[in-house]
Amino acid sequence: MIVVMDKGATEEQIEEVIGKLIGLEFNVHRSTGAVHTVLGAVGPAELVDPEEFKVMDGVMECRRIMTPYQLASRSFRPAGTVVRLESERAGTVEIGGNAAIVMAGPGGIEGEEQILKSAEIVARGGARFFRAGGLRPHLAPQQIQPLDAATLKLLRKAADLYGLLLAVEVSETAQIGLAEEYADMLLAGSQNMQNYALLAALGRSGRPVMLKRGMAATVDEWLVSADCVLSGGNGNVMLCERGIRSFESATKNTLDVTAIALVRKLSHLPVLADPSHATGRRDLVAPMARAAVAAGADGLLIDVHPDPDHALGEGAQSLKPAQYAELMLQLKTIAAAVGRSL
Amino acid sequence: MIVVMDKGATEEQIEEVIGKLIGLEFNVHRSTGAVHTVLGAVGPAELVDPEEFKVMDGVMECRRIMTPYQLASRSFRPAGTVVRLESERAGTVEIGGNAAIVMAGPGGIEGEEQILKSAEIVARGGARFFRAGGLRPHLAPQQIQPLDAATLKLLRKAADLYGLLLAVEVSETAQIGLAEEYADMLLAGSQNMQNYALLAALGRSGRPVMLKRGMAATVDEWLVSADCVLSGGNGNVMLCERGIRSFESATKNTLDVTAIALVRKLSHLPVLADPSHATGRRDLVAPMARAAVAAGADGLLIDVHPDPDHALGEGAQSLKPAQYAELMLQLKTIAAAVGRSL
Amino acid sequence: MIVVMDKGATEEQIEEVIGKLIGLEFNVHRSTGAVHTVLGAVGPAELVDPEEFKVMDGVMECRRIMTPYQLASRSFRPAGTVVRLESERAGTVEIGGNAAIVMAGPGGIEGEEQILKSAEIVARGGARFFRAGGLRPHLAPQQIQPLDAATLKLLRKAADLYGLLLAVEVSETAQIGLAEEYADMLLAGSQNMQNYALLAALGRSGRPVMLKRGMAATVDEWLVSADCVLSGGNGNVMLCERGIRSFESATKNTLDVTAIALVRKLSHLPVLADPSHATGRRDLVAPMARAAVAAGADGLLIDVHPDPDHALGEGAQSLKPAQYAELMLQLKTIAAAVGRSL
Amino acid sequence: MIVVMDKGATEEQIEEVIGKLIGLEFNVHRSTGAVHTVLGAVGPAELVDPEEFKVMDGVMECRRIMTPYQLASRSFRPAGTVVRLESERAGTVEIGGNAAIVMAGPGGIEGEEQILKSAEIVARGGARFFRAGGLRPHLAPQQIQPLDAATLKLLRKAADLYGLLLAVEVSETAQIGLAEEYADMLLAGSQNMQNYALLAALGRSGRPVMLKRGMAATVDEWLVSADCVLSGGNGNVMLCERGIRSFESATKNTLDVTAIALVRKLSHLPVLADPSHATGRRDLVAPMARAAVAAGADGLLIDVHPDPDHALGEGAQSLKPAQYAELMLQLKTIAAAVGRSL
Repeated sequence: MIVVMDKGATEEQIEEVIGKLIGLEFNVHRSTGAVHTVLGAVGPAELVDPEEFKVMDGVMECRRIMTPYQLASRSFRPAGTVVRLESERAGTVEIGGNAAIVMAGPGGIEGEEQILKSAEIVARGGARFFRAGGLRPHLAPQQIQPLDAATLKLLRKAADLYGLLLAVEVSETAQIGLAEEYADMLLAGSQNMQNYALLAALGRSGRPVMLKRGMAATVDEWLVSADCVLSGGNGNVMLCERGIRSFESATKNTLDVTAIALVRKLSHLPVLADPSHATGRRDLVAPMARAAVAAGADGLLIDVHPDPDHALGEGAQSLKPAQYAELMLQLKTIAAAVGRSL
Repeated sequence: MIVVMDKGATEEQIEEVIGKLIGLEFNVHRSTGAVHTVLGAVGPAELVDPEEFKVMDGVMECRRIMTPYQLASRSFRPAGTVVRLESERAGTVEIGGNAAIVMAGPGGIEGEEQILKSAEIVARGGARFFRAGGLRPHLAPQQIQPLDAATLKLLRKAADLYGLLLAVEVSETAQIGLAEEYADMLLAGSQNMQNYALLAALGRSGRPVMLKRGMAATVDEWLVSADCVLSGGNGNVMLCERGIRSFESATKNTLDVTAIALVRKLSHLPVLADPSHATGRRDLVAPMARAAVAAGADGLLIDVHPDPDHALGEGAQSLKPAQYAELMLQLKTIAAAVGRSL
Repeated sequence: MIVVMDKGATEEQIEEVIGKLIGLEFNVHRSTGAVHTVLGAVGPAELVDPEEFKVMDGVMECRRIMTPYQLASRSFRPAGTVVRLESERAGTVEIGGNAAIVMAGPGGIEGEEQILKSAEIVARGGARFFRAGGLRPHLAPQQIQPLDAATLKLLRKAADLYGLLLAVEVSETAQIGLAEEYADMLLAGSQNMQNYALLAALGRSGRPVMLKRGMAATVDEWLVSADCVLSGGNGNVMLCERGIRSFESATKNTLDVTAIALVRKLSHLPVLADPSHATGRRDLVAPMARAAVAAGADGLLIDVHPDPDHALGEGAQSLKPAQYAELMLQLKTIAAAVGRSL
Repeated sequence: MIVVMDKGATEEQIEEVIGKLIGLEFNVHRSTGAVHTVLGAVGPAELVDPEEFKVMDGVMECRRIMTPYQLASRSFRPAGTVVRLESERAGTVEIGGNAAIVMAGPGGIEGEEQILKSAEIVARGGARFFRAGGLRPHLAPQQIQPLDAATLKLLRKAADLYGLLLAVEVSETAQIGLAEEYADMLLAGSQNMQNYALLAALGRSGRPVMLKRGMAATVDEWLVSADCVLSGGNGNVMLCERGIRSFESATKNTLDVTAIALVRKLSHLPVLADPSHATGRRDLVAPMARAAVAAGADGLLIDVHPDPDHALGEGAQSLKPAQYAELMLQLKTIAAAVGRSL
């Protein structure tokens, strides 16, 4: 934290600021210039809001100089994190290694036949993970139900049948225990990116965790949230860019492809992209999936449905089986062009 | 919903769209023009995403024509909703009536002395509601704790002592029961504006509910969320604008004052404003509080702290006791200028 | 500018940064810490982009500590600027003084009758300035014509007839000379906020200049643009907030009322608001005009048209004569509530 | 345009709306339903703002159903536009054909040596166009000078020497004549995307025109601007996505890669990307250039400088010569992966 004092700041005001910094465990270096006194403060991580200092008497400006996150920072683990999952039926899968990986499945769960068929399509295309959204009795998004044991059992059965790993979204702390029983990986959705109680609980989980970016969250805030999971002791954290909200409404969200490239520099954590939720339109999923891999994404989340025109939710953004199969072939070429496999 | 078919759309494609609309309980009017066939579809409420039709073969364009919300719409109750609370100690308070009301209190709960002192300041200034944020053992925002029974009891005691009503935020379904025991009003925070499980549970509550706008939520999405609470049978719903995220980072958020005026036209629900969270800076709270009332807000949420420079959270945006008292006087004048009391 | 060097930055890298800072006329203070070397650099104004340093080898972080503007800063003239215009027919008008002022007129120029009628309505309501948009032969916004001498003469005649001052928008350097002949004040529109050639030319003008905020411009960028005009020697600069673009599309733009309050703290320049362009809807103009004055605006720009339903442009956002008259009465009350006149 | 009338709309109100639609050359189809009367109106292009109808008495809702642009629409020329340039020294270059093309050069013009050296680097890497920003006597962005004849002559000389085509930005109508003499292609910058006088003049030019997207412009607005150029008779129009402004400030702008894929569907015009201005950081240029090509961009604008650490402007976002050469090799691989050459 750098605090620049006003021209006329009194000694008392300067002392007040120094006292507050020290109380927050910062080391403070004071530099008395001809015009302004500048306080340079270094602490373990800069979570404190600079506004807390800006409103103090005699303070002209206050800025963070260190990142507000620490454990998620690239400097914490320069070589990068590779999340490794092993399973009897699905073999070994690494996320963050040389191979880009794909997680695919339908946006909503409509019944056993749809789920089994979806898993078959997903596996045939070459994805390693099966992922399905919430229970959908109806098209309205307000009607999504949380996953119960019977549904989780069905998802597990589908994944096992086709040699896939299973990723499941959790939205309340109370769901984690059940989800851990059935799933290989837990997802925190974008709406929960700053649900700190949930993040803390995921930090205590033995399962790898994928943290989706909130649709109005900065990259800094996203990595602070990753820190929350990491600080619980769970080092198997992955990030997923899924579109931010901008003024442009021609697409559902704006896939922040730059953030993928940026996060790979700022953090050691693997980062994936979800072009389906970002665009909301199946005809834009393929180009954005290619773009994400070209920018360096470690993987993709893709919505695919046996019959999207009759899907109970997320139909518009779900690929048809043939489109998905074709995309997977395209992605292998793009991955190769950036020196990776798929 | 209006669906415009492509020039060369086949009869089969048109039938496919009509079939999907009817399956979703829309009444469909078909208009065959020289160039385009246009399908006008009217349903109970337009929750379905137009994208679901845009991706169908032969469809050129699809647009909603009705609002996606229904119960929250002004046309549902043209006279407007007045939420009325009665209490032995605090008397009768109406929200949405002639008087604009103020809810105030500290951003974080630090201990009994701080809470009692805060309630005293709040009451002395003329606010009718006491409101306090989460338990704060530390300045970092990730450390907030949910409210437990002991804390709720303390808040209740403080409110009662000074003749105030008590508003409490809930963030998980499981917290509602306990909160209802102690609080006069429940708040759903901006992070939970689309937590549909929580909204459904609040719809079954006997307590009035205040629904804060998500920081990246459109007015339409906000009113759809209000519909979710209303459809559970709880008619005592209020809205609160607390700042949206824009490109401007000079303030924490951008208070969307226009949305206050707009929502009063679109909806019958009372709408309040939270200038403290919106600006994040105590020196901007007073002008924005005045602006909100001038634009027609039915009330305000204001952060006030006995000693904000030493607050464990939200200190920068909390008014000092004297600033709060002065603001309350200013607000009476502004309220009078728009024909209201405070 | 604060430059924080990497842990392992070499002496050579540090010297390279210091050399670049000195070359840009910064005074550099070096602070060698246990872990990081920190360079504090103070210059005349911080126009240089911190990114220029961030990409240098060995640099971890770089932040501005001073504002990037200087002449527009409140500290440059703490008492505030009052722009004073004197005219035989309109008397003396001050902007930035105790009285909030109103500039009003139609969004497009359609003919002599419309202009004369508009000026009469504007004057009768109590506004001091007449302002009219471009020549409009058609509703499409792409058809606006720049003002020619005949039109300027007409506007001058209308203003003089009703004792009003005249404000005219200029969009190219070449238009300034002609506009100065007829107008009392020149406006730079939001699309031209960063047209630095135009700003420089306005800085050499003898007429007061109003600088509208770009719809995607930060407050810092706006004040840098004001600096460009001021540095040309023209001290009579005013600012006008006219709505920013956010994700919310329920209104044309989002009037950033907070920016009005903020700019009054950051700058000594008067700041006005344009609720007509911000909302794009006449039914929201009155509440937002009240909000702006309550937040501290020094004046308003309001679109009013003798018959907006048949206007050739900006009709939706133009007040009807009776609505305008009523609003002017409301504004007097709000102005009084914040200790001002109108 | 679809206009939905209120439940209780009178026959007179309906007639008023129909009259206004007909006056704007719409064909109106009236559909009288049990509850609402719906007016379907089809016109040559939907430039008129729906708000103009929304504020009329008796109108409940009004929505565009056709795109507001026409000539730029893909349906106008389904096969796509290929802009072809022929030159003695540079040979034939096609934009929008199978080959993706690169335009490169420094962000600012500092002198003859820098320009000649830049052109040499640009040509050696395989780009076909030389492009250089404004005259830069100083790092501050406010000091950019428009191009004079001597500078244009220098740029032409550099381009010719190395067999490159020359693209030059124009920002005022008066500059077009001179620029046409020296340049093979004219650029309209993002600040001028809605400078309709300039667009009209470019529509009368014999030179191909590249239209950069405004940083707060929707895709619809961008294509309306392209329509303005096309309607002047100049069919050689190209688009360039250069980053939009979002809440994320970790990068200068947010490159809207999705818009590239979307515009290729909506329009027949070639679309390029400018990753240098979008990211503002040279370490992110390569991944974003790859992403743009993978998403279907027809070309790229890239800032390259012989010595960016000492550049007078845009240094942070300019590639070093070796980085540029390496990127060009990477891009060939990505282009091949999507079935194109470079």
